[in-house]
Amino acid sequence: MSTATDRRRITKFRDGAREEVPDLIATEEPLVIEVDGQVVSTTMRTPGHDIELTLGWLVSEGVVTSPEDIATAAECFDRPNEDEESRLVRVTTRTGRAPQPRLTPTSSACGICGSDLVNRTLAESAWSLAEDTTTFELDLLLSLPDRLREAQRGFAGTGGSHAARIFARSGVALAVREDVGRHNAVDKVVGNALTAGLLPLRGHIIQVSGRASAELVHKAVRAGIPALAAVSAPSTLAVDLARAAGLTLIGFSRGDGCNVYSGEHRIT
Amino acid sequence: MSTATDRRRITKFRDGAREEVPDLIATEEPLVIEVDGQVVSTTMRTPGHDIELTLGWLVSEGVVTSPEDIATAAECFDRPNEDEESRLVRVTTRTGRAPQPRLTPTSSACGICGSDLVNRTLAESAWSLAEDTTTFELDLLLSLPDRLREAQRGFAGTGGSHAARIFARSGVALAVREDVGRHNAVDKVVGNALTAGLLPLRGHIIQVSGRASAELVHKAVRAGIPALAAVSAPSTLAVDLARAAGLTLIGFSRGDGCNVYSGEHRIT
Repeated sequence: MSTATDRRRITKFRDGAREEVPDLIATEEPLVIEVDGQVVSTTMRTPGHDIELTLGWLVSEGVVTSPEDIATAAECFDRPNEDEESRLVRVTTRTGRAPQPRLTPTSSACGICGSDLVNRTLAESAWSLAEDTTTFELDLLLSLPDRLREAQRGFAGTGGSHAARIFARSGVALAVREDVGRHNAVDKVVGNALTAGLLPLRGHIIQVSGRASAELVHKAVRAGIPALAAVSAPSTLAVDLARAAGLTLIGFSRGDGCNVYSGEHRIT
Repeated sequence: MSTATDRRRITKFRDGAREEVPDLIATEEPLVIEVDGQVVSTTMRTPGHDIELTLGWLVSEGVVTSPEDIATAAECFDRPNEDEESRLVRVTTRTGRAPQPRLTPTSSACGICGSDLVNRTLAESAWSLAEDTTTFELDLLLSLPDRLREAQRGFAGTGGSHAARIFARSGVALAVREDVGRHNAVDKVVGNALTAGLLPLRGHIIQVSGRASAELVHKAVRAGIPALAAVSAPSTLAVDLARAAGLTLIGFSRGDGCNVYSGEHRIT
């Protein structure tokens, strides 16, 4: 069974010195996702919380919105292909809304997106963020990057992971999840909240490491989260999608300040 | 016509002060790729050097390996879909090896990958890196991150881009390219080298910002580049693929030192 990190023997050059040492590295491996009897995706991810990852991705794809939509969700250790050691998560739904199969496997940094992203995100979302009148205190927002970093345990040694965590406006935190893929970390925390019956996540904010792409905004909207904060920069499409969806988008959140790209009315 | 960066009016909170300012943000927009009359991919990317991006991606997909493989490559401003403002690059090949269409659009952070990546990368590559006996001086390697940053112009203001640049072992640099997607920046510099007739890129090294995923190693192998250096961490699959392919993989390259994960024999 695979673990979230693994060791490799490497060579370090520092200040002219050379040293051979074992090094801790973030694991990247394929996960096959089967929904209602059909393989719908092969994604590169860091092993761990694979059912949460799958369910969170299905929220993002618009397939499920509550625990009642899921009949079974199982991690399978059989090999879907004789030549591969891929892990498989097998889900059966009560919705019958299986996602379209993906012919091409997606990478560790890939989820849903596309040219019709804005239209799809808004038209097909189960909840409207505009109705969520939650406000967040600026001091809370600025404290979240540190609270995310403190909670990152598995990858502390690798320097190669992304992390995501959902917080209530009171500051209460849900589970932290990590992955070599930014979008996987978000899928995992959303899947975790789904199984706890917390969707839509009104009154919550999701803090992510790294940058904010349009894809992450899409995932927050689909989970009913009214605010997304990133440690680094957003893209233009992330800003435009956030404005269209009524999501509060925060970037460069770094303790002493932040930039607000959309939905500033939620910040007090 | 879209540009690589765009302005949005945002709110900045710094040290208790609040200010509304125009801000420069990295553009993220869809590009439709049509090969031999068939739409094969829609990718999220930063506009600019779209033909290079397309040709570099086709190198990575194993469709082309030299300028002679390409009959025509054109940027088209017609709309592939009435509702969309997507840009289109239209390529006709002389190889007839069009890639399999991707039913699902890929994100700004996604290229090729998958559970059979190692086997595919090695079995289907046009060149073997093992035959490349180039060595690189450590001092040159440690200077590359700074030389990459100095060359980044377009995005200096956004903080939201990745960059890639190919260097000869003598230190001579090829073009630098930037994108919100790390893999797009690599595709762009490979496409640039392809059109200059430089493939396979024996005796060269590619320096990238950020982390090194297995996907980036795959792209370097397909372009015949014997060494890949990243500013941050690699994943386990990136290390394993580099070792199997005979590629020198360097991580945490930061001026005063670096980690070598594979192919240390090329470093002197």
